[in-house]
Amino acid sequence: MQVSSNTIEVLTVEDYARFLAKRTVKMRVSEVRQLLKWAEGREVISFGGGLPDPRIYQVEELAEIAKTIILEERHKVLQYGSTEGLPALRDQIAKFINRYGIKVDGIENIIITTGSQQGLDLIGRILIDPGDVVLVEIPTYIAAINAFNVYYPRFQGIHMDNDGMIVDELEDTIKRFKNEGKRVKFVYTVPTCQNPAGLSLSEDRRKHLVELAEEFDFLIVEDDPYSYLIFDREPPRPIKTYDTSGRVIYMSTFSKILAPSLRVGFIVGDKKVIDKIALAKQATDLCTSTLSQLIAREALRREIVDKQIKNSISLYKMKRDLMLEALAKYMPHGCKWTKPIGGMFILAYAPEGVDTKKMLQKALRRGVAYVPGHGFFVDGSGANTMRLNFTYPSEDQIDRGISVLAEIIREETMRC
Amino acid sequence: MQVSSNTIEVLTVEDYARFLAKRTVKMRVSEVRQLLKWAEGREVISFGGGLPDPRIYQVEELAEIAKTIILEERHKVLQYGSTEGLPALRDQIAKFINRYGIKVDGIENIIITTGSQQGLDLIGRILIDPGDVVLVEIPTYIAAINAFNVYYPRFQGIHMDNDGMIVDELEDTIKRFKNEGKRVKFVYTVPTCQNPAGLSLSEDRRKHLVELAEEFDFLIVEDDPYSYLIFDREPPRPIKTYDTSGRVIYMSTFSKILAPSLRVGFIVGDKKVIDKIALAKQATDLCTSTLSQLIAREALRREIVDKQIKNSISLYKMKRDLMLEALAKYMPHGCKWTKPIGGMFILAYAPEGVDTKKMLQKALRRGVAYVPGHGFFVDGSGANTMRLNFTYPSEDQIDRGISVLAEIIREETMRC
Repeated sequence: MQVSSNTIEVLTVEDYARFLAKRTVKMRVSEVRQLLKWAEGREVISFGGGLPDPRIYQVEELAEIAKTIILEERHKVLQYGSTEGLPALRDQIAKFINRYGIKVDGIENIIITTGSQQGLDLIGRILIDPGDVVLVEIPTYIAAINAFNVYYPRFQGIHMDNDGMIVDELEDTIKRFKNEGKRVKFVYTVPTCQNPAGLSLSEDRRKHLVELAEEFDFLIVEDDPYSYLIFDREPPRPIKTYDTSGRVIYMSTFSKILAPSLRVGFIVGDKKVIDKIALAKQATDLCTSTLSQLIAREALRREIVDKQIKNSISLYKMKRDLMLEALAKYMPHGCKWTKPIGGMFILAYAPEGVDTKKMLQKALRRGVAYVPGHGFFVDGSGANTMRLNFTYPSEDQIDRGISVLAEIIREETMRC
Repeated sequence: MQVSSNTIEVLTVEDYARFLAKRTVKMRVSEVRQLLKWAEGREVISFGGGLPDPRIYQVEELAEIAKTIILEERHKVLQYGSTEGLPALRDQIAKFINRYGIKVDGIENIIITTGSQQGLDLIGRILIDPGDVVLVEIPTYIAAINAFNVYYPRFQGIHMDNDGMIVDELEDTIKRFKNEGKRVKFVYTVPTCQNPAGLSLSEDRRKHLVELAEEFDFLIVEDDPYSYLIFDREPPRPIKTYDTSGRVIYMSTFSKILAPSLRVGFIVGDKKVIDKIALAKQATDLCTSTLSQLIAREALRREIVDKQIKNSISLYKMKRDLMLEALAKYMPHGCKWTKPIGGMFILAYAPEGVDTKKMLQKALRRGVAYVPGHGFFVDGSGANTMRLNFTYPSEDQIDRGISVLAEIIREETMRC
């Protein structure tokens, strides 16, 4: 496992200075967002963004909630709130995550963020000093790379298999760094229905990862939007549930279980970490929308979130099955893809030599969008991969879209 | 004018590295926010935060709008939006600021931010490289200092008089830096009813400032939440209206003219600048709440913002007059204060030797809160100043609160 040219190598003070000078240039356009923007207003089958199915929104209930809380909580709902977030919402979140096995001492272990993207930015801000080693999965969530990159980490990728991140490889990597006199600052992982790979970390590996964090003194950032959307079995226990010493920083969001537009996420962690995040958040946006927070609180309290989770699970399970069937039916020989137990994404591999980034223009012209996988791979690999979202497109679109992609891959393979 | 020990001196690469290492330590708690938090749930006369009078909110109208847009724009209101913000809102903002003399070529010159605090963070992120010289007023807005500090600028303060920032002093400062081979990156200013000083920049100085920006090749960041709340005369023309070459980055917010809780601000600037900000915003929170944006759009469209501005102006004018009267009536000899033409704040000076930070504990115990001015002064002065908000406290509280403060200052002065 070599550190590739795509990995950020920041080793000397002079290197930092050069990096800092080029900072604005270095930030790369998030392919996901560009694609979303492109798609706006055009007729396209979008496997691109990570959007919920519009049918799962409980529009009438949310309209009623919004009206009621503005009228009834008028003195709170329109003013600034505290940076940590509304106590009543944090209290509801504590109860909600408790059902998934995460116990907190109190609401001072929870901070509300403006979506989980802000959570990533704030975690990068408080944890990463230039050149710090951050371990991530290969592939990993591209928006986390973009958020952390602002703070100049040195990314090191760890490969995955069907049981998620290969924790033995992670252990070897940490030891190698240790031998070089370097310490790993934290591991960033999406352990359940990972974005983009759709893979989940096995229970044994979750335990092992926490043991390693103890032994080698690093933190674990567990980004978990998808544990609430598991189709085939009980959700795996979050890594946070194995944490006995506050080493795991857990983050999630209401974007997939209520509405992305609210921009409400949350971080659960040791009070010292939460306090630092609050300090950083003050300088960033003062507080998260009080209106959004009250809507989220009320949606939890009235069990609207529960109902939506239930509806999403059955709808998304059906759509995932449809996409897996379509892939099996249409994709040419040499292709492979992951089989997620939940979440929103399948990662598909075209035969080696196919460049899914170049191929995207062709796909878009034929009315199909996806996210080329390359940007998710910090080792510079993945040029033949694509992230396919199965929750947003309609059932009919899934079948048609995959058949178009299969046709294009077939053409591309012949060209290779 | 010396660079004081409070100014951030970052001159060599080694200095940067040391600064970077201490980054999380260096971030200081925003006194404003801490105070707001403290005040929550306690009976206190708060001259602290910059909160609107709760009576000016048009609660019924906003409740109706929230319900209607969720029902009628269900396919847009709950999903992610584009990073730049909803075109329909940017279009309404273009029309709104046009009435204050700011002309834009199109909505591509406008980006929506999650409150204007995010605007400050993003501007810091795209403009400031460690050690860059940033000129600010003495005093200047503390949350801007906190936002920019994350990116390690070298602040240099410019004094103010009754006509706002002394632009001749600014010119001398720029020339001095130039002689040392250094360039000023940008000037940050709140030119109208400044926070915390309550002073406004004269028209001549606005013109001169823009001329200097041309001559010495720097940018102007015009932070303008208060031009919409001018009591005694027509609002001064924004600096942006004198800009012919895209050197002025204008920012404002709906926090003071609709509701802080929505977290909707905006930046107006050259398309190249807006594009860079959009790129930075992607990594920060993807997009601003679509629900908040649609509420703001509808409030502009239905002229609810106009009505609120009209009501605010008459209510705040009355309150400002009350506070000026109370100050004149109660304050002991040796005190002075500014006389704002609008906005939300008066800056009061206790006699030299009084430490308003130490004095705050006493004031809080007697039920009065304010923001000690010291943190607003990048030259380390201002220990005897306090920022007094006149919009949030009730009429009765203004009179009582100022009399309590006057009494305490009298006691402190005797101790000096």
